[in-house]
Amino acid sequence: MNAIIITIGDELLIGQIINTNQAAIARKLNAAGVAATRMLTVGDEMGAILGAFREGWSVYDVVIATGGLGPTHDDITKKAVCTFFDTTLESRPELRLHIAELIRKRGIPWRVSYEEQALFPVKAGVVPNPLGTAAGIHVQEAGKHFFVLPGVPYEMQEMMDATIAPFLASLVTGSVIRHRTLRTTGASESMLAAEIGDVQGFLNGATLAFLPSPTGVRLRISVQDANPGEADRRVSEIEATIRSKVSRFIYGVDEEEIQAVLGALLRARSLTMAVAESCTGGLIASRITDIGGSSDYFERGVVTYSNRSKEELLGVSSALLDRDGAVSESVAIAMAEGVRRASAADIGLSTTGIAGPTGGSAEKPLGLVWIGYADASGSFARRFLFGDQRLRVKERASQAALEIVWRRLMGL
Amino acid sequence: MNAIIITIGDELLIGQIINTNQAAIARKLNAAGVAATRMLTVGDEMGAILGAFREGWSVYDVVIATGGLGPTHDDITKKAVCTFFDTTLESRPELRLHIAELIRKRGIPWRVSYEEQALFPVKAGVVPNPLGTAAGIHVQEAGKHFFVLPGVPYEMQEMMDATIAPFLASLVTGSVIRHRTLRTTGASESMLAAEIGDVQGFLNGATLAFLPSPTGVRLRISVQDANPGEADRRVSEIEATIRSKVSRFIYGVDEEEIQAVLGALLRARSLTMAVAESCTGGLIASRITDIGGSSDYFERGVVTYSNRSKEELLGVSSALLDRDGAVSESVAIAMAEGVRRASAADIGLSTTGIAGPTGGSAEKPLGLVWIGYADASGSFARRFLFGDQRLRVKERASQAALEIVWRRLMGL
Repeated sequence: MNAIIITIGDELLIGQIINTNQAAIARKLNAAGVAATRMLTVGDEMGAILGAFREGWSVYDVVIATGGLGPTHDDITKKAVCTFFDTTLESRPELRLHIAELIRKRGIPWRVSYEEQALFPVKAGVVPNPLGTAAGIHVQEAGKHFFVLPGVPYEMQEMMDATIAPFLASLVTGSVIRHRTLRTTGASESMLAAEIGDVQGFLNGATLAFLPSPTGVRLRISVQDANPGEADRRVSEIEATIRSKVSRFIYGVDEEEIQAVLGALLRARSLTMAVAESCTGGLIASRITDIGGSSDYFERGVVTYSNRSKEELLGVSSALLDRDGAVSESVAIAMAEGVRRASAADIGLSTTGIAGPTGGSAEKPLGLVWIGYADASGSFARRFLFGDQRLRVKERASQAALEIVWRRLMGL
Repeated sequence: MNAIIITIGDELLIGQIINTNQAAIARKLNAAGVAATRMLTVGDEMGAILGAFREGWSVYDVVIATGGLGPTHDDITKKAVCTFFDTTLESRPELRLHIAELIRKRGIPWRVSYEEQALFPVKAGVVPNPLGTAAGIHVQEAGKHFFVLPGVPYEMQEMMDATIAPFLASLVTGSVIRHRTLRTTGASESMLAAEIGDVQGFLNGATLAFLPSPTGVRLRISVQDANPGEADRRVSEIEATIRSKVSRFIYGVDEEEIQAVLGALLRARSLTMAVAESCTGGLIASRITDIGGSSDYFERGVVTYSNRSKEELLGVSSALLDRDGAVSESVAIAMAEGVRRASAADIGLSTTGIAGPTGGSAEKPLGLVWIGYADASGSFARRFLFGDQRLRVKERASQAALEIVWRRLMGL
């Protein structure tokens, strides 16, 4: 069973928003055993929308389109569906009721635009939208399925999870596709490729993809097989082969972020941690606290942007700041030790650097970052160069800092 | 001059990575006066790639494809270009030299895979890639242009900025498209639509798009005109009409984030700010410090996840924490006042809430957040409900907190 994902919106064509819906739908289809083999994006223009519908419906078993179901004048997808399937709109009492209930809970008065939201193509079935006013559309013909969902990401995702993915999964027969992704940090794509060596020797028809990102390269294994158990077995076999070559770079699998892996390690060993950030500006704390339950091991974070705050909150001496400057090995160590001491946490972590876009010098260039680490056995700092783009420096420095703690805990 | 953007990669089709390249290319094309009217994504499969090339090249003036130029076995785009344009690969000495120079600077030894990176289609011109080893491909036929760029985002973006966008801009003649986006916060799409009212009365052929996001709705005005000056004038006229109806929700234009607008206000008034975060976990500090030069007005942030840290760093009394609980109006106010006092900043801002996924109760449900504010004239806290998804709670709470400071400074 194959699928095309059609996303609709001028904002996508001019690059004003990033198309996260496409990826979210693809992930959910894939998990349901449906292969999306094409993604298409067109603008809010009737001819382009109808063209995309025709192209998708003539080739694919499943068409999923999103966007243009909202209450404003630029939302024309519902009309396109009526034209395409030669039907008209009717007011659906159950949709009117749902909308009334939804806005009552939010204390919003009834508006004329809600009447339009209750209009629905006669031929179509409703995909309930528990989180919003625009219902999803489902047309079924000759064993093929056509869906239109609202473009609001969390509404669309809820509808995929609650209704569409389970429905499609129930229809899927034949071979399954299994994926596993090994997440690495601290190695380049070329380095990993060289250490893994010839892949055809162990893949036997499976695929291995190298996916670089600023925080590390992911290695994705994919196996297709008629037998789900056999597919799982082969994925595990290939994983073991790759781990035997590059395990020291692999911190997690699939969607696991390093902050989740690190959190689980801290929890298992009953350790606590505190962070003192200068150039990362709170990003490390924010990543750690993205994980539910992080209050069990994350004692505190401080964002010490000013020298004064480094002195007051971390006990870094003004003499040291004067002598070596805020961006230095000695200050990074003093910050890590200082936040550990002040918080009584087991581990102290720190960053100090020049995130840019200004402030670099020949001796201390833009992108220079010192990362400090302290625990009961001692402390140290490491020096990095992360380039001249502010947000990239923050991102890469936060990753390197979390990697340092992970490597210490793993004994790597 | 119209364009299609083709992105290539199995990782996109299974939704493993979000297609940021598509949006980045679209934005740069649009700024150069080239309208991308279709985006297409296909997998790492020769038939699908060639099909996409055929489809694009037969209809569009400009085809831009990315992905599959890397050094590993799953990168087959270069071969597809040779098949499509009926040519072969040759080793280019200038590419070999560039690669050698690049890896020398990074202290990486020469690998066999670099020989392959220096192979290039005979018929094609080189688009230089200063940041990476994979050169871009440019084929020109009958006034049409076919480009292939590597999929690594920052390499691709640099090549668009330095070479392709200026080249295409020099070819563009005819009508221009001008956009302006007004960024709002604190109002729903329906509320804005109702207050703006009938748009056809003032658009006169221009378009106005409503773009909802978790942090607010953006209103995008687009005008096409043969005369650039006239297009600019009409954009400004429509902007003025919209502002006359909903100005109290508009904090910025185009790519301005609220943290940038707020930062400019603080700087202009020589005010400083400090933040005490519980449930947002450092996200507010990280957003503020995403802005270059924020050290001028951001004195410090503290992430006080534990009660102990609230007492030690903010002087919140244990009696208050016992009586009202950490998630309460009184503690939010005490935190804002505490961080203001400790830092001697002009403004103190705080968050305390239940981000989930566990910890809610009937009285204090998941998603309950108190945001505290303190300045020389006094202090207050406001109560919010942000739902039951941890990352969404963090995101929405950070936005609401920044909005509170912005509204105070603007006197709204």
